[in-house]
Amino acid sequence: MKAEIITIGDEILIGQIVDTNSAFIGKELNKIGVSVYQITSIQDDKDHILKAFAEAETNADIIIITGGLGPTKDDITKHTLAEYFNDTLIQNDAVLAHVEDLFAKYISTPISDLNRQQALVLSKSEVLQNDFGTAPGMWIEKNNKVFISLPGVPFEMKGLISKYVLPKIQDKFKRPFILHKTLLTNGLGESALALRLEDWENNLPKELKLAYLPSLGKVRLRLSIKGFNKKGIEKIVEAEVKKVLPLIEDVFSGFEDTNNSIEQIVAQKLIDQNKTIAFAESCTGGKLTETFTKHQGTSQYLKGSLVCYATQSKVDVLGVSQEVINVNSVVSEQVAVEMAEQIRLKFKSDIGVSTTGNAGPDKGDSDVEVGTVCIAISTKHEVKSYTFYMGNHREKVINKSVNKILELLQKEILIN
Amino acid sequence: MKAEIITIGDEILIGQIVDTNSAFIGKELNKIGVSVYQITSIQDDKDHILKAFAEAETNADIIIITGGLGPTKDDITKHTLAEYFNDTLIQNDAVLAHVEDLFAKYISTPISDLNRQQALVLSKSEVLQNDFGTAPGMWIEKNNKVFISLPGVPFEMKGLISKYVLPKIQDKFKRPFILHKTLLTNGLGESALALRLEDWENNLPKELKLAYLPSLGKVRLRLSIKGFNKKGIEKIVEAEVKKVLPLIEDVFSGFEDTNNSIEQIVAQKLIDQNKTIAFAESCTGGKLTETFTKHQGTSQYLKGSLVCYATQSKVDVLGVSQEVINVNSVVSEQVAVEMAEQIRLKFKSDIGVSTTGNAGPDKGDSDVEVGTVCIAISTKHEVKSYTFYMGNHREKVINKSVNKILELLQKEILIN
Repeated sequence: MKAEIITIGDEILIGQIVDTNSAFIGKELNKIGVSVYQITSIQDDKDHILKAFAEAETNADIIIITGGLGPTKDDITKHTLAEYFNDTLIQNDAVLAHVEDLFAKYISTPISDLNRQQALVLSKSEVLQNDFGTAPGMWIEKNNKVFISLPGVPFEMKGLISKYVLPKIQDKFKRPFILHKTLLTNGLGESALALRLEDWENNLPKELKLAYLPSLGKVRLRLSIKGFNKKGIEKIVEAEVKKVLPLIEDVFSGFEDTNNSIEQIVAQKLIDQNKTIAFAESCTGGKLTETFTKHQGTSQYLKGSLVCYATQSKVDVLGVSQEVINVNSVVSEQVAVEMAEQIRLKFKSDIGVSTTGNAGPDKGDSDVEVGTVCIAISTKHEVKSYTFYMGNHREKVINKSVNKILELLQKEILIN
Repeated sequence: MKAEIITIGDEILIGQIVDTNSAFIGKELNKIGVSVYQITSIQDDKDHILKAFAEAETNADIIIITGGLGPTKDDITKHTLAEYFNDTLIQNDAVLAHVEDLFAKYISTPISDLNRQQALVLSKSEVLQNDFGTAPGMWIEKNNKVFISLPGVPFEMKGLISKYVLPKIQDKFKRPFILHKTLLTNGLGESALALRLEDWENNLPKELKLAYLPSLGKVRLRLSIKGFNKKGIEKIVEAEVKKVLPLIEDVFSGFEDTNNSIEQIVAQKLIDQNKTIAFAESCTGGKLTETFTKHQGTSQYLKGSLVCYATQSKVDVLGVSQEVINVNSVVSEQVAVEMAEQIRLKFKSDIGVSTTGNAGPDKGDSDVEVGTVCIAISTKHEVKSYTFYMGNHREKVINKSVNKILELLQKEILIN
């Protein structure tokens, strides 16, 4: 059971956008036992698209195509699909009604013939109604293989994948189970780790695949296995994890959770423990708050937050003492502690979290080195504070700080 | 002159990482007149890699391969390249010295044979020394085509592309110039825009390619052209831009500066006009602030912001009147106006911006439909308020709101 993903659009090939769709689709297919054999990104060019379709058909059972479904002339996926399947385009009344409805509700310009053409679909296709946009998805079967055409807009594509594509694949194809288990390690290089694991690796069962994924001080060890006996493959992985854990005890930091991001795990713990939280952000500049609010259900536990970017606003708006800043510098654990306490009191939350630091590239109102970040977490019973050096790259400093706070909340505050 | 990018690694196909390398390479190649014909992502599997090499060789002149060069067993690119070119691996002394040097300087574990094997290269290859890691790049020529193998770690790959790959391609191949010009428009849908531009589009010179790139309330119009006469193709593009501008006067917001995003343009205007700003965010949940703070230099114009997610915090922390909320609902222009005024006064900024709305998926403390967003912008002289329907998808509502605010700031507030 193999799939190929074909993404269509010059914007990918000229680097105007990064293709994030394929990673999402790859991950979702894996969860239901479908391996992605290849991802192919090609131009909006008829001959090239036809060639890619033909090659994918020989390589894979499921071909998922994204992009090129807009109403304008540069979008040619639908017509090219019709040519490939020797089919014609016909109007789908349900899609037309949906497009008209979207225009009536959300769009100020009048509906045009171009918009109405979004309702044209391959006559042989099964239409997948797009709740979030005008371009419908299509499911086309041929010789026991299936082509699935989806819009390239990420949230439209995601909606169709979850609502139709995954259930329909599960329904149609007998699939093995695919299991990935990823162990996180810190502090040992890729090759040093590999040397240490050499004997274990050499004796791994053949059906088990091991990969080393190094990145900046961390190495992820991924074990992958495929099989129709779910319990059987789980047992094989468990047995190997049991063998490897004692070998990496000093550097092992946990298992990677692929379904839930770490902020979702923290959010669920807050909800379960009936606790509320508020943030006072300086160097993280709103990123900490946004990390939570991008998911739904945030109002159950997040009271709010204050981004006091200017030093003076820490005093005027948040109520940090000017003296504490003068004595300790604005980037200090003392200031972080006051920020965390003040924000907790201001928002009447159970937990208050603060960041103050220098994300760079220039030094700000403090003399500390670029990349220095102080974090404090305040509860009714105690305040904890920390200082970290997050490196000299702005994006890295901000994201590492957010990750560190999530880790601290999970490991030190919401333990139960 | 065509290139193909081949990225090797299971982590891409199972969606464990997003392939950002290809977008970078695509953009850089375009700048020097090389079109990317296809991007192909494949597994760490010898047969599949050999097949991809063979196909790429028939399609393209330049084949850039990233990934699979690590010291561990799952990395097989180098050995597969040797097989493909019927070549052997030999030790390169300069690379070995570099690897030993890196270990002595930065790595606490002792150097091992696995690390030393990083110095093995194809005997027929020209070695590209990797300043930022242990895996060297390789440049291999065959029948006037060139294969370039690079490590998959983004900053190592980027270093090699800039230092060796681009200059060597410029040296070896005669290339045309490629020119992209992207016009930004706001407030008109893709198809409405296409209808308006129909005559102009039908009369475009054949060598000019037009693409519509819609995203959340914006449509980018990209004109692309290729040719050996640089001045000639620039003239063609300029002539068409001159023709199209009067047609889109009311929705045109500028040219895409691939170096500057719209928030950077707004930020620069704030700095130029010596104005400061503060945000009161509800439904956008910190995203508006984070959009600015992710870039450097924010403290020149951003005083700070308040994310008052809970309704009560709008009253308690921000100082919105409870009565105004009771009378008008928490999602209303009246509340947005009070929020914008209060935040401006609280942070003593020149401009205050607020959002209150319902990003969904459930209705919150207001009865208004999911996707309703009220925005207000307050200055010393006036307050403007607006209501928009941003659709029924959380991510879309948040991002569209942020885009709308950037547009309003640019068009209505920072005009000079």
